[in-house]
Amino acid sequence: MSLDIIASNKSFDGWHKQYRHESSVLGCEMRFAVYLPPQALTGQKVPVLYWLSGLTCSDENFMQKAGAQRIAAELGIALVAPDTSPRGEQVADDAGYDLGKGAGFYVNATQSPWREHYQMYDYVTKELPALIETHFPISSRRAISGHSMGGHGALIAALREPGRYRSVSAFSPISHPSRSPWGQKALGAYLGNNPLLWQEWDSCQLLRHHDCQPLPTRVDVGLDDPFLDEQLGIDALAEAAEAKGWPLALHRHAGYDHSYYFVASFIEAHLRFHAEHLLERD
Amino acid sequence: MSLDIIASNKSFDGWHKQYRHESSVLGCEMRFAVYLPPQALTGQKVPVLYWLSGLTCSDENFMQKAGAQRIAAELGIALVAPDTSPRGEQVADDAGYDLGKGAGFYVNATQSPWREHYQMYDYVTKELPALIETHFPISSRRAISGHSMGGHGALIAALREPGRYRSVSAFSPISHPSRSPWGQKALGAYLGNNPLLWQEWDSCQLLRHHDCQPLPTRVDVGLDDPFLDEQLGIDALAEAAEAKGWPLALHRHAGYDHSYYFVASFIEAHLRFHAEHLLERD
Repeated sequence: MSLDIIASNKSFDGWHKQYRHESSVLGCEMRFAVYLPPQALTGQKVPVLYWLSGLTCSDENFMQKAGAQRIAAELGIALVAPDTSPRGEQVADDAGYDLGKGAGFYVNATQSPWREHYQMYDYVTKELPALIETHFPISSRRAISGHSMGGHGALIAALREPGRYRSVSAFSPISHPSRSPWGQKALGAYLGNNPLLWQEWDSCQLLRHHDCQPLPTRVDVGLDDPFLDEQLGIDALAEAAEAKGWPLALHRHAGYDHSYYFVASFIEAHLRFHAEHLLERD
Repeated sequence: MSLDIIASNKSFDGWHKQYRHESSVLGCEMRFAVYLPPQALTGQKVPVLYWLSGLTCSDENFMQKAGAQRIAAELGIALVAPDTSPRGEQVADDAGYDLGKGAGFYVNATQSPWREHYQMYDYVTKELPALIETHFPISSRRAISGHSMGGHGALIAALREPGRYRSVSAFSPISHPSRSPWGQKALGAYLGNNPLLWQEWDSCQLLRHHDCQPLPTRVDVGLDDPFLDEQLGIDALAEAAEAKGWPLALHRHAGYDHSYYFVASFIEAHLRFHAEHLLERD
């Protein structure tokens, strides 16, 4: 697989870069962004945090708005931000912002017309990491995080792929999509209308019904998030984790909302949390 | 004058807010953003950094991309980001991105059709600070900074308004607009084609021909900035400052470009520079 570079910007003595490539899993051209900290520029392999973005986002939102590069540069951690759905004229779409392009929900679709391209789960957990670890001085020490729909993506990836990540975190995740209007619409379209088929793509259900291997987990949510009650299912996540004995550190923040102003305020804490596990000696 | 709030987001224990108001100087409705650090929330008056943005920008670019709130919160400095031109259907515009809306160049236009609304200099140096100091717990201890066209704006404001600011800084400023294609186009349109009329709006010319009261000044520029040679006039600024004995600390950075990735990498240094002067005991 070849990579075409689109942009390259020096940032905190490291480099933010955007690339285009053909995804065989998605059957379309995709864009992603990577931040290489200064430690990677000497060829040393560095660990990596994958960041999954929320509805309507691309690879750019996190890189431009979270302010994560400063801390990644200090810690020597690479950042990788994929897009949020397959792209291109041939890719099925919906008029709503919460289905189709910009709203892949990090699942593998089984229903027409989505299944042809919407295989975002395999893309973000397998194809993209393989590409990253081939083309960059980035090791297989992976952590995963994300925001909103991307927080959901990070949690299901960590729960479904034992051994693949060393830690997981999320901001304002859609933790129980089977009970969230956003999740019901997307999972119904991508996977079909039988909610039993959604279980494997719902963090709360995965915790309840599967033998998941415990992984350090941090979740932050703002108590003035307008989506808190209807869409995020944080209480259900806390209960499922508690019942399972899952190591969830849940932080609720008065006054904060769903925006990147919230993410930026706590991204340093998330990166330091991941660093504890990514930089640990074996 | 009344203010209508558009958005409010908690950020690093302070608040990012966007407002709309009628500007009498510009004759149109304007939007601006303010960051109130936690120290301002108790009613204590805090000093302020005004940030002037570059071509095509609004009040949002700096607040979303520079990562300045973290340091402003630590230091107890408010941030204010105005828009870059008058706005609205009745406001004259040009098809180019570098003239008209989004490109007010922080001058007071004298030429038709611009003079009716394009009085950005008076807006950012006088009307907006008066509004800010009336409506917010923000003192008259002011500093000013900006990027590209906004760096030009910050420098001319500091040079033309002795006593109004305690320090000035700029990222990649258009330092000598009389010799820059961007500057020639904009100053020609707003002020007329006689370059003598541009002198009062050109940092290098102001330094050469006026008795300016020395003010602590910091300028950072990236050596891989694609606009460095043709548009920015940094060497002319360095020479004019040197000849005048002006206290300019100029930092040139290998590998950095014109983007907000550059601004974000050095905004902490700029805020700490301004804090030395804004927080000084009288």
